[in-house]
Amino acid sequence: MKIIKQISDMQRVMKIEKQQGKKVGFVPTMGYLHEGHQTLLKEARENNDIVVLSIFVNPLQFGPNEDLDAYPRDFERDEEIAALRGVDYLFYPTVEEMYQENRTTIIKVEQRVDVLCGKHRPGHFDGVATVVMKLFQIVTPDTAYFGMKDAQQVAVIDGLINDYHLPIDLVRVGTVREEDGLAKSSRNVYLNQEERTKAPYLFKALALGKLQLEVGMEVHTVKQEMEEYILLHTGYKAEYVEIYAYPTLQELKKVKEEESIIIAIAVKFSKARLIDNIVFSYSKGE
Amino acid sequence: MKIIKQISDMQRVMKIEKQQGKKVGFVPTMGYLHEGHQTLLKEARENNDIVVLSIFVNPLQFGPNEDLDAYPRDFERDEEIAALRGVDYLFYPTVEEMYQENRTTIIKVEQRVDVLCGKHRPGHFDGVATVVMKLFQIVTPDTAYFGMKDAQQVAVIDGLINDYHLPIDLVRVGTVREEDGLAKSSRNVYLNQEERTKAPYLFKALALGKLQLEVGMEVHTVKQEMEEYILLHTGYKAEYVEIYAYPTLQELKKVKEEESIIIAIAVKFSKARLIDNIVFSYSKGE
Repeated sequence: MKIIKQISDMQRVMKIEKQQGKKVGFVPTMGYLHEGHQTLLKEARENNDIVVLSIFVNPLQFGPNEDLDAYPRDFERDEEIAALRGVDYLFYPTVEEMYQENRTTIIKVEQRVDVLCGKHRPGHFDGVATVVMKLFQIVTPDTAYFGMKDAQQVAVIDGLINDYHLPIDLVRVGTVREEDGLAKSSRNVYLNQEERTKAPYLFKALALGKLQLEVGMEVHTVKQEMEEYILLHTGYKAEYVEIYAYPTLQELKKVKEEESIIIAIAVKFSKARLIDNIVFSYSKGE
Repeated sequence: MKIIKQISDMQRVMKIEKQQGKKVGFVPTMGYLHEGHQTLLKEARENNDIVVLSIFVNPLQFGPNEDLDAYPRDFERDEEIAALRGVDYLFYPTVEEMYQENRTTIIKVEQRVDVLCGKHRPGHFDGVATVVMKLFQIVTPDTAYFGMKDAQQVAVIDGLINDYHLPIDLVRVGTVREEDGLAKSSRNVYLNQEERTKAPYLFKALALGKLQLEVGMEVHTVKQEMEEYILLHTGYKAEYVEIYAYPTLQELKKVKEEESIIIAIAVKFSKARLIDNIVFSYSKGE
């Protein structure tokens, strides 16, 4: 595995790999790799000739009140994981390298961001889209891997790829879960023992919502029922329960056959704020 | 010469050309090709294996009060010129092809646009940057050719290429002039006979400004002298006379040796609004 820190070096090696007809899979991350990232790397390794992992904590996607400096970092551990997962190139630039010159533009995301978590993080997805566009131009992957735990981020990247006709396949990798259904997250350690037993009800609520839509219940009724279910089983009022078309994240008035749908939840426990979602293709049951 | 209308076709042929190691020169235009465009095509033809010309009147760079529909078009004539100039691929997409899906993002230009013509056309350069990024991803040129008549546009594209690390050489092609110095422009036909004799004083004023800077005169004094000179010789008050660092388009307090400088003028005659500029590397004379 080669560790590369310069943009020009990365572009040079990728040009050679591409000229040799190599298929390149890319996993962009902010490091501190967890099981979710490892699933992305596994998928990338199985389906490409060359796997590129990037680790870059992108200041542009942090708000003024979000603590960029406190973002966890452990490069040595990340390096070990990357090597074990068969990464060929680990791209690890500094902030100065990525934002060398005075930035003159930003990619402003105008759709898919005024809902879910985007509503509370103005500018966050502009920062994501801008850095991902930079990384795509540096790495020139054939395929890019993103985790569906961050379904809204995946929707934004999907829009970016379409808008600029990027010749990149976007692979959405499913959320990794504990046996009881709880989505894996570094934030789960902040749950106390009692909360940990209740947290799986987020995923159960998502499953309930899906079933109810499939038997023909109206969107707003399903949301209500899910909210009640979450309150009953966790003792917490959900921060949001939302149902949208996916990946457009537009309102669903009436659900159509084969429409792709996301149900998403956020619940604030005493210390941990948990999010979860499911995306599925709608088909009406009997 | 092949005329291509589909993005996917264009991407397919360019992929093949690039795999064969061909060097690709690209001239993006809105059509209605004039002598300036022909100079770009000539430069591109002399320095590349493959020349791509795009003709696309981009709605995104027109303001609500700018008449997109009245923009002059003559595809048959353009096609002839392209063939004569040795263009290999003429990319000629429809608006529906270029903006197929709901656009989710725009490239917002935050620097280099609050001066000169950008001041009066809010959003114009966002539209330019967005469509040029799309075209760059479709054509994947090694070199792109732009005319310095639109020096601010060139500055914006320069920023775009740096921001996203695009592996593209930007070639700035000098303004084509009449023998008396008047910059060639389709708008020159709107000058009456008397105005036509006075219009060359724009270029003379630029030359005067350059000389005055080189003998050490202060920026604000040079601007004043140029304004007086234009008023005296044309009878019109200049809309603006500006002097900036180029391509950053930032204020120049003190001029430094070898600094790249732009002097730019706009003058509104009875019917025609003319613009002109010179960009040069500063060196103090004796």
